[in-house]
Amino acid sequence: MSDAKDKSAGWVTFDPNLKILDCTVRDGGLCNNHQFGEGFFRRIYDTCVAGGIDYMEVGYKADKALFAGKGFGPWKYCDEEDIRREVGDNETGLKLSVMADTGRTNPSDLLPRSESVIDLVRVATYIHQIPAALELVQDAKQKGYEVALNLMAVSTVPDYELDNGLDAISHVDEVDFLYVVDSFGSLYYEQVGDLIERYKKTGKTLGIHAHNNQQLAYANTIYAAINGVKLLDTTMMGMGRGAGNCATELLVGFLKNPKFTLRPILQFVQDTMFPLSQQIDWGYSIPYMITGHYNEHPRSAIKLRDGERKDDYVGFYDEIANP
Amino acid sequence: MSDAKDKSAGWVTFDPNLKILDCTVRDGGLCNNHQFGEGFFRRIYDTCVAGGIDYMEVGYKADKALFAGKGFGPWKYCDEEDIRREVGDNETGLKLSVMADTGRTNPSDLLPRSESVIDLVRVATYIHQIPAALELVQDAKQKGYEVALNLMAVSTVPDYELDNGLDAISHVDEVDFLYVVDSFGSLYYEQVGDLIERYKKTGKTLGIHAHNNQQLAYANTIYAAINGVKLLDTTMMGMGRGAGNCATELLVGFLKNPKFTLRPILQFVQDTMFPLSQQIDWGYSIPYMITGHYNEHPRSAIKLRDGERKDDYVGFYDEIANP
Repeated sequence: MSDAKDKSAGWVTFDPNLKILDCTVRDGGLCNNHQFGEGFFRRIYDTCVAGGIDYMEVGYKADKALFAGKGFGPWKYCDEEDIRREVGDNETGLKLSVMADTGRTNPSDLLPRSESVIDLVRVATYIHQIPAALELVQDAKQKGYEVALNLMAVSTVPDYELDNGLDAISHVDEVDFLYVVDSFGSLYYEQVGDLIERYKKTGKTLGIHAHNNQQLAYANTIYAAINGVKLLDTTMMGMGRGAGNCATELLVGFLKNPKFTLRPILQFVQDTMFPLSQQIDWGYSIPYMITGHYNEHPRSAIKLRDGERKDDYVGFYDEIANP
Repeated sequence: MSDAKDKSAGWVTFDPNLKILDCTVRDGGLCNNHQFGEGFFRRIYDTCVAGGIDYMEVGYKADKALFAGKGFGPWKYCDEEDIRREVGDNETGLKLSVMADTGRTNPSDLLPRSESVIDLVRVATYIHQIPAALELVQDAKQKGYEVALNLMAVSTVPDYELDNGLDAISHVDEVDFLYVVDSFGSLYYEQVGDLIERYKKTGKTLGIHAHNNQQLAYANTIYAAINGVKLLDTTMMGMGRGAGNCATELLVGFLKNPKFTLRPILQFVQDTMFPLSQQIDWGYSIPYMITGHYNEHPRSAIKLRDGERKDDYVGFYDEIANP
């Protein structure tokens, strides 16, 4: 592992080992129950290929026994035939990932990698689910995948509990990548730096997944990259649950490595994401700022933004600050 | 002066010596030629008082010989009687500031402080104007004001030229506060940190004025505060030229010092700024991101956002990247 700050930013912007994972379809899909319009998937896939993105996350690998019949689109489940209908055998340099939520995934839905176009399985877990998550990790690894572990909502986890969890993770060789996840968008750079230092002790290659509640998703992602984190999650125009994520176009515009190309990404954002942003509410707004500052799950702010009181900042603040 | 990082952020959030300067009327006024609606000034003044803001900037002290008859509102000039009509003798804890642009200010327009409700004069200067700016500084100081020097557009100034300018400033005792100004919104935290270190060598108390082209205005302002900068510029809902500034509500929500109160600020933002934001275009958008990444003045992006091509990101990118 690299040290806390082993490279100047000038160097990091050129680092070919930095990888971008665009998870628009997965995290953005939380804004529309993964019901994207005709052609959306193919256009974002082509854009990721043209833009030099390293990984594209195609959705969740959710258990149909839990979710079927509730109105979710295909990227909630990521059936192999649905992915192949869009990407064929994916004969490109773009790798594909799926997210497997601990407790919501049936391991038998995961084919052997030799039969799948998926390259990377990202297991998402809360701290108390780590043992179950590590079983998913081991299953995915045995099937031949690259495997990431995304530890969610750490901003509410006591230090000793986090360190115990990280210690357990450090002993599991099947974890290729470990993610710092700012689920509530509540962290600023010093807190991100503290987590990076703790996570580095596991010896794993690190990733970061940030949320934009305080307009810090891009700032925290840059900070993480400069301080040794190698996998950087983004979404097109920041589309993601609630306040959304680090925008792909912001990060690609910042990084100077010639493997990334901004223009096709801007074209997709202009033609597809901007019109979508006029129909669906995502991205920074003051209710998300409030839940971020209070280190709370954004669900109350999402509910507010979905209704007629969406810009009642004071009413919402009173509910959160004086519950 | 304090060291590069003399306090943990935990401490900084409580630091009573951190001061917020709300410059909505001045920088936000660049979006509407300083023509705010009836009652706006009084409402934001009352809000700053209720919110515990330290300074409110009431506008520019521009020379009428240069600007009169061109459609600017009163806060382009900040005549004493106009300010007093709004604030009387300002018998509150809120201090008032004006900005004096070097080359656009007639020193004879500046009353002795004993005859004015203004407390702080902020002299804005480009690097090549420093000698003229220091004359304005000395005039204002002799008249009894606190004086700040805001050195603009430093992201385009060669290092040796900047260090020469800072050396000149360090010898002028009349400069109370020296501002790190990110005019183009092009800086990220390592660059802000480098400027802070250089500016500290002058021995002055430092301020920061950030722009939000890359969604970094708040991030850079927090970073500066944690690294020893004491005066923090903000605007309500981030209203300011182009991509705007660090939002007052974001910074007040972050800081834990009880002298600041978020609720009246949210009330003002909800009742007054949000409706205004539906009428006037300001704040982060992709054209501003592009000029920020290219370290260019935002004027081309402002022009674009003012016309029918406002969301033609690719066309604008082609103009900036391949001029």
